[in-house]
Amino acid sequence: MNNFWSKYPDIQIQLNDIKSNLSEFHKTGEKYLTESFDYLMQTGGKMLRPAFVLIGALMKEHDEHEKISNAAVAIETLHMATLIHDDIIDDAKMRRNQLSIQAKYSKEYAVYMGDYLFTRVFMILAKYDYTRENLYDISKGISKICIGEMMQNRLRYHNDVSTKDYLKIIAGKTAALFAVSLGLGGHLAGVSEKDAKNLGRIGYNVGMAFQIKDDLLDYSSKNNVVGKDTLSDLANGYYTLPVIYALKAESSNNLIKILDDQDIKEEDVMKAIHIIKNSGSIQKTEALADRYTKRAMKAIEDLPSCRTKDILRDLVPILLDRKH
Amino acid sequence: MNNFWSKYPDIQIQLNDIKSNLSEFHKTGEKYLTESFDYLMQTGGKMLRPAFVLIGALMKEHDEHEKISNAAVAIETLHMATLIHDDIIDDAKMRRNQLSIQAKYSKEYAVYMGDYLFTRVFMILAKYDYTRENLYDISKGISKICIGEMMQNRLRYHNDVSTKDYLKIIAGKTAALFAVSLGLGGHLAGVSEKDAKNLGRIGYNVGMAFQIKDDLLDYSSKNNVVGKDTLSDLANGYYTLPVIYALKAESSNNLIKILDDQDIKEEDVMKAIHIIKNSGSIQKTEALADRYTKRAMKAIEDLPSCRTKDILRDLVPILLDRKH
Repeated sequence: MNNFWSKYPDIQIQLNDIKSNLSEFHKTGEKYLTESFDYLMQTGGKMLRPAFVLIGALMKEHDEHEKISNAAVAIETLHMATLIHDDIIDDAKMRRNQLSIQAKYSKEYAVYMGDYLFTRVFMILAKYDYTRENLYDISKGISKICIGEMMQNRLRYHNDVSTKDYLKIIAGKTAALFAVSLGLGGHLAGVSEKDAKNLGRIGYNVGMAFQIKDDLLDYSSKNNVVGKDTLSDLANGYYTLPVIYALKAESSNNLIKILDDQDIKEEDVMKAIHIIKNSGSIQKTEALADRYTKRAMKAIEDLPSCRTKDILRDLVPILLDRKH
Repeated sequence: MNNFWSKYPDIQIQLNDIKSNLSEFHKTGEKYLTESFDYLMQTGGKMLRPAFVLIGALMKEHDEHEKISNAAVAIETLHMATLIHDDIIDDAKMRRNQLSIQAKYSKEYAVYMGDYLFTRVFMILAKYDYTRENLYDISKGISKICIGEMMQNRLRYHNDVSTKDYLKIIAGKTAALFAVSLGLGGHLAGVSEKDAKNLGRIGYNVGMAFQIKDDLLDYSSKNNVVGKDTLSDLANGYYTLPVIYALKAESSNNLIKILDDQDIKEEDVMKAIHIIKNSGSIQKTEALADRYTKRAMKAIEDLPSCRTKDILRDLVPILLDRKH
């Protein structure tokens, strides 16, 4: 993924601009705050969502580069805010190879730092004249993320969580922002309502496939070492699709027994993972990810000829071939 | 306070409308969410900030009642979001005489419920055409709240926290939203920039006095019973103005020794409160609250004749005579 943008130098330049704007916009008069933002910005991230805004905007010639770049800064700020809050909930120690904000500072500080970044989203958006529809779409996107996360939280340790519930959770926590980003870029460039909807649909399907692939990563047969995240997800009662399918399989009694144990140990989790891997649920999960990938690719093919189409055709297969 | 609005039936009616809109706007398709919002709305609250929006708007004849009422809903939503997150940080069990969201559901749920309400603020605002300036003022207000809370958090257990730091904290966490509310009401009614600034200044001074009086409440000599909040504030290292003044007094050695104890017990806190009460710091705090009250009253007198002036003249002294 890292070298991908060298093929598209115009996007690479814009993404670098967005990165430096991100650091700039979050400087405050408070030394302590500025220090923690600098810390947060050190690692960067894949900048996927801002890239989606830029790609969506390539569907139509326009004169709104600054406004679009500014929207991309807002979207990445929003993403950063959600990550900070996620790490509180998951008690995650690491994020992007360094201590998470909640681990480095405190959970309390992380609550407010996330809140602060949320409000920055709208301060950034207030720099340009966005329409009410733009603001509504973005806020609605955030609210979907929150609803997804709240659902995930509520359904922890539920061994009867349905596939439908799970899809609703990831539609909120991941797919919504991909959809908003791509659609917003199009909107701001002035594409038709229909085209903007199509872009949103592509973003949604890419996001769904992306999250399912992410959930599969640690169960992949090439991986002999099971990641810490998988262990802690299972121990903390977050059941992703491979688990949910395995829980529905005929031979699920042993799995249920292990997961229901209040005092679950690492070796139990390893046993659970073994059962999951042998239940056929990995293949079922892969099949579902493929379905979303295909839907995304089909929707991309349905776009009229444009750079958005060319870049997405190139990017999406690489993005969804998740080994990173 | 509760009967105050019966003197101003037009405001009372509008506040009731805002209350029912609040319940309505936060209904979602998710049964579980709707249930927790209904729970949150059961108790209401003083609705001071929405009242300030309405009062600010009375400075000029206008035709923007719905837009202003909608802004007031957004402001109260924002206030609710900050309370939910505050209760996480403070580990507060009760809010408005019922279990707090974090105590009833979980801290995790409370993080996302607050986030969800934050985004609702902007979804609500997207219902009408507010200017970029309106959005900026509101977002800036929220960011000040966050900065105030982050500072407060950072300065916990610091026995050398300065009066200046403390005033900065409460300027953010309390006065900012009072200032935004009153100024926003004026703005939306179309008052001049100068008048809107004056309204903001009144809101700020009222907010400062309000918070200082709040911090004084439990130390008041009429109160023989020290509130649980004071005990837990001290034990948790949140030092309000009476404590800060006492820490600066010549005889502060014993107080510092008690507060520095890692394993502070209830009887130690009682001793600390005794020292604080006898240090003359209560009188100094009262004097500072009076200064802000006077500034607010002076700024109100400087307003041109209008209903805003009449109502504030009536309301502010009652509001700042905090025995409730």
